[in-house]
Amino acid sequence: MKYTKNFYQIRSNAHILAQLKKEQETVGYYKLPFADTSEIKRFAQGVTQKTIAVLGIGGSSLGSSAIYDFLKRKYHFGKTLLFFESTDPVDIKDKLDRIDPDDTFFIIISKSGTTVETISIFKYLSSTINFHAGNTAVISGTGTPLHHFADAEKIPFFELQQNVGGRFSVFSVVGLLPLAIIGVDIDNMLRGAQKVYQGFFEREKIYEMLMEKARFFVENKNRFRINVLFSYSSSLEGFNKWYVQLWAESLGKRNINGTRQGLTPLGLIGPVDQHSFLQLIMEGVRDKTVTFIKVADFEEQLIIPPQTPIPKLEYLEGISFSRLIALQADATIEAIDAEGDIPYDVITIDKVDEYNIAELMYSYELLTSIIGAFLQINTYDQPGVEAGKIILKRKLGA
Amino acid sequence: MKYTKNFYQIRSNAHILAQLKKEQETVGYYKLPFADTSEIKRFAQGVTQKTIAVLGIGGSSLGSSAIYDFLKRKYHFGKTLLFFESTDPVDIKDKLDRIDPDDTFFIIISKSGTTVETISIFKYLSSTINFHAGNTAVISGTGTPLHHFADAEKIPFFELQQNVGGRFSVFSVVGLLPLAIIGVDIDNMLRGAQKVYQGFFEREKIYEMLMEKARFFVENKNRFRINVLFSYSSSLEGFNKWYVQLWAESLGKRNINGTRQGLTPLGLIGPVDQHSFLQLIMEGVRDKTVTFIKVADFEEQLIIPPQTPIPKLEYLEGISFSRLIALQADATIEAIDAEGDIPYDVITIDKVDEYNIAELMYSYELLTSIIGAFLQINTYDQPGVEAGKIILKRKLGA
Repeated sequence: MKYTKNFYQIRSNAHILAQLKKEQETVGYYKLPFADTSEIKRFAQGVTQKTIAVLGIGGSSLGSSAIYDFLKRKYHFGKTLLFFESTDPVDIKDKLDRIDPDDTFFIIISKSGTTVETISIFKYLSSTINFHAGNTAVISGTGTPLHHFADAEKIPFFELQQNVGGRFSVFSVVGLLPLAIIGVDIDNMLRGAQKVYQGFFEREKIYEMLMEKARFFVENKNRFRINVLFSYSSSLEGFNKWYVQLWAESLGKRNINGTRQGLTPLGLIGPVDQHSFLQLIMEGVRDKTVTFIKVADFEEQLIIPPQTPIPKLEYLEGISFSRLIALQADATIEAIDAEGDIPYDVITIDKVDEYNIAELMYSYELLTSIIGAFLQINTYDQPGVEAGKIILKRKLGA
Repeated sequence: MKYTKNFYQIRSNAHILAQLKKEQETVGYYKLPFADTSEIKRFAQGVTQKTIAVLGIGGSSLGSSAIYDFLKRKYHFGKTLLFFESTDPVDIKDKLDRIDPDDTFFIIISKSGTTVETISIFKYLSSTINFHAGNTAVISGTGTPLHHFADAEKIPFFELQQNVGGRFSVFSVVGLLPLAIIGVDIDNMLRGAQKVYQGFFEREKIYEMLMEKARFFVENKNRFRINVLFSYSSSLEGFNKWYVQLWAESLGKRNINGTRQGLTPLGLIGPVDQHSFLQLIMEGVRDKTVTFIKVADFEEQLIIPPQTPIPKLEYLEGISFSRLIALQADATIEAIDAEGDIPYDVITIDKVDEYNIAELMYSYELLTSIIGAFLQINTYDQPGVEAGKIILKRKLGA
């Protein structure tokens, strides 16, 4: 008897690593952290407007929004970044009321150049705003209608490479340009991503951690279908949303056998959601894994004073909020650990800066690629959203 | 042969209705819409400060925050409402930097009077802010430490009845007081909830709809474990969060047989999340139901002008964003319908006002009660969050 192919083979970690190395020939996001940023930085320095308005949705907004959200409470940037991403008229009107168009720089982002939300808002604004080289930049694929428009109007154009998908584009010009303009140190940001890249492909500890985690998710996917990210910082809400897109759109696929795959991502914020979703994790059906994200040092010394006039809970007095939130996370982790049958892990990032969020985001991109490889799906396409687009066009009489 | 009790009985709709009627003797939320609001309105009129800061978390903040989020883009209230709910020091510092304490009215909300997040922030603020009758109100249970504090300091006190749980408290003083102060017509809000109450208990159409829906969720709970709320308006993000708490904390329970129950709630915003989670709904594992929420009339006429200089997608020109977002919702619904095996329903609310959001929220409270009754759980407690609280106290050396 001779076995020439085992249909049911479980791929080895080495096989997956080899696949990820091979993917780098065609999938653009892997090497983004090593790109030259000098042109972006030079351009960013020339932008003087107070408000930066990004017209973009999904992968064109979630990455820079996540990093901006993470940093803005602490850094108090001199400029404000906001995103026109929805076609909700109340939302558009409200945002327009809050900006001064004469002191706003617009970044139009659409890889295809034909994103309905982005183009409809761009068209709408064009009736009152004169878009020109001094107040606008365009990010799109080469040769798209947006590209031609930018060239014709002499509006600065930045190319998003064809092989970088929106949800993997945070370290491309899509994320870097708006962030550089508001004052984020994008080189430090990329160093965080580089660190993870090197650690992973040189098989350091991060390699073991990500492989082990991906394997658990895949091997137990039918039991633990929901992956909860429990982030202990209000500043991580944007990151949670970015994670939901990355996970849902990359992993919600039919695999090579036509079988439906998909792990369902869900983002929570601690300690707020201890008063909400935690009950379901503790007592509900055991179909969830939980990843806790903690910040080791918030670098903000807010101490609850001793002997306050406010009654009870005296044991809170004299401690800092940094310590309190850390203990709240630890207490929740301990409670979940005590259940004994809820799979969880803990990621601690050092502090609130661009280096740390980049490390976290790049490691999630790699994790997504690994899981996709294990699941034998195409991690980088999104065929399931086409049907709705076609129906919309028909409804619009196109 | 004689059958005296059928252990496996599936309860009838009539049985559930009778249970909900009976519950009204002990569960306080049902009758809240019929309470007298004159004291709240009188008090609200006397508040002159520009900023209203609520110290409260979970049920003490999510309800009023949902309604404020829904209305604020459209109504441009003269006052700003903000919530101190997290112990994240960066978040606390950022919020403090944005308010003028001398022009801020504080509402301290904690049913038990011993909520860690609320009391710690209250203690912290007490070192720099003098809380007195002119700038503070307290909402708590009768006889709590907070109640005694308010009495001693002559600070206005509002009672939250013992039999109203936090996540069902939006139509109590917890929701009404902050909303009345910023200028919401709370009587109109309560009329929306009354309408649903009457329609349901008088067995009008809403009764049939909610019963049918609850039955589907319960009978298919092992297959469709995740209930996605796909809300087509950016203004419904707060409502989504409120729904997640209501659903997760009410339904994530062991039932009378000790079996783990729990439907997992997940909130999406359209059209934004068409570029994110939709792929997973379309191609992922069939373990999700989807409820679409549409706004019939945004009452905001933003028209995409004809013949714009922006290239392509000419079929968007001349239409309004109200129509565009409605068509986007319809296109997504049609795409999901075409799959044939994704259970979904559509709720359309008339417009963006307090009456409509109240109708929606009250109907979700009733739906939660119905499902809880079918599942034979206690919908109104939250035993699963106690373990973490005890561990935290130990860690703090209490």
